[in-house]
Amino acid sequence: MARKADVGDLVERAQKGEPRAVARLISLIENASPQLRPVMAALNPLAGKARIIGLTGAPGVGKSTSTSALVRAFRAQGLRVGVLAVDPSSPFTGGALLGDRVRMQDHASDPGVFIRSMASRGHLGGLSWAAPQAIRVLDAAGCDVVLVETVGVGQAEVEIASLADSTIVLVAPGMGDSIQAAKAGILEIADVFVVNKADRDGVQQTVRDLRNMIALADPGGWKPPIVPTVAVRDEGLGDLVEQLGRHLAWMEGAGELQRRRQARARDEIEAIAVTTLRERMGDLHGHQRLDVLAGKVLDGSCDPYTAADELVEGLTGP
Amino acid sequence: MARKADVGDLVERAQKGEPRAVARLISLIENASPQLRPVMAALNPLAGKARIIGLTGAPGVGKSTSTSALVRAFRAQGLRVGVLAVDPSSPFTGGALLGDRVRMQDHASDPGVFIRSMASRGHLGGLSWAAPQAIRVLDAAGCDVVLVETVGVGQAEVEIASLADSTIVLVAPGMGDSIQAAKAGILEIADVFVVNKADRDGVQQTVRDLRNMIALADPGGWKPPIVPTVAVRDEGLGDLVEQLGRHLAWMEGAGELQRRRQARARDEIEAIAVTTLRERMGDLHGHQRLDVLAGKVLDGSCDPYTAADELVEGLTGP
Repeated sequence: MARKADVGDLVERAQKGEPRAVARLISLIENASPQLRPVMAALNPLAGKARIIGLTGAPGVGKSTSTSALVRAFRAQGLRVGVLAVDPSSPFTGGALLGDRVRMQDHASDPGVFIRSMASRGHLGGLSWAAPQAIRVLDAAGCDVVLVETVGVGQAEVEIASLADSTIVLVAPGMGDSIQAAKAGILEIADVFVVNKADRDGVQQTVRDLRNMIALADPGGWKPPIVPTVAVRDEGLGDLVEQLGRHLAWMEGAGELQRRRQARARDEIEAIAVTTLRERMGDLHGHQRLDVLAGKVLDGSCDPYTAADELVEGLTGP
Repeated sequence: MARKADVGDLVERAQKGEPRAVARLISLIENASPQLRPVMAALNPLAGKARIIGLTGAPGVGKSTSTSALVRAFRAQGLRVGVLAVDPSSPFTGGALLGDRVRMQDHASDPGVFIRSMASRGHLGGLSWAAPQAIRVLDAAGCDVVLVETVGVGQAEVEIASLADSTIVLVAPGMGDSIQAAKAGILEIADVFVVNKADRDGVQQTVRDLRNMIALADPGGWKPPIVPTVAVRDEGLGDLVEQLGRHLAWMEGAGELQRRRQARARDEIEAIAVTTLRERMGDLHGHQRLDVLAGKVLDGSCDPYTAADELVEGLTGP
């Protein structure tokens, strides 16, 4: 763990874009270090400039390839790019398990690109606690764009959307079932649909399915465009970047960018507050207290709500 | 919403196994009704008899079919069976979206089977808040076995495991990638592996992969057996039920059943306590207060930890 005197130094080096300092700060988040408090206090005024773009989709749609292609596209515009790859399926290990980080090696020697994987372990408050802090690190380190990629299924997709200014939902031809299954969710979160692997059979059908789904929902306001890509050959990436730019311009005009960032800050504050309260529940009562209550619920002598009241009372009582 | 006088009546009817009363009680959970407090107080002493079996796996492995086959197998033993199908990917709608509940229609006219789908909406505290309460309802309604099935990916898999006495992880031949991706997680949670669709090519390879993975990990204690099944034809179900019985006997002998149930009660109490505190944060400060703090974090004048402290202080201060 960094000593107290190191915090200022670490932050200063991260602000200059030094990769090792950035990596160190993100490790502090993964380890839920007590030093996060002064670190975030120092970083917060430096952040707020980056565009945050979320990228999600079912396994097999080509998320890593697409992220890598987007990195190239933004780099070609001279922008500094951060990538945060979140793996919500790895709650047990310290490191994230994203399989083909290998492709990301393309960017390993580029000083304008930061890439970090992060496991979102449940006991730390999960994605909603850790990810905004990691994004702040990349933002303060001078990234113009931060791509947040997740192995997106279920709840994680929704959380990614709540972290980002714009969310890309990736699908691939012939995955009709997964579109069907995710329908309710992806329409709510997608700002841009990408149909990747658009050189495969069935791309027209997939585009039609998406178009119908969007038309049926018709929420007014922003209508998510559908961009076919072949990320492995960088095809369609120009169009994707353009549509992301359109979305950003629309959000700025409609006050939506401010609204989303405000909601994000609220979520982050609440997640930190809940984590604090959770820690206090452990600290004050000790696990013994909770064990006694759990025993009573099990033997039927106390119901879970009354047991929870007893826990809460210890925090909020006089 | 049920009137106060109805609570006792509802609980009594649920205890007699009346399906409409059971359905009504589970709806109270989905709606986070204030009446849950007296309901859970009344139900808790009636529960604790059911075996809770979790069932998870990637999309396409045949979870619904396997659940249905397990229901038949337990019914053949004369046991009453509850099924709770949890869909963590449906945070937006009131009802769960599990596609092929249709197969479950096989059991629709069987009074010894209760089937309920449940969406785990994030804002209520999610699965860890709702599922134990729904399980308690089915348990108190006289189910000998409660099967908890989830669209299992990532965090949801882990949560299911923490809800169940025994957890079945389903895989299918030719899904090597998903096994690879989920490796770290599934080894920790699987008490029994099922290789479904065992009439397909590649089943031997999948069994070998699993066996190697288990051998490498070798945590001591229980070694998860691997059961090939063809659930759609009820093949292998006898073996699966036998292995589940072996696991139950092992847990009872090793004190593991008590340990798991104790951990579950702790988790439930904590989840209810956190939900209570979250509600109070909203109530006491109002969303306006949180909005002011979020604004300060956004303009850089306050860091998120200090903002969270201000929220927490309002709860725990004098």
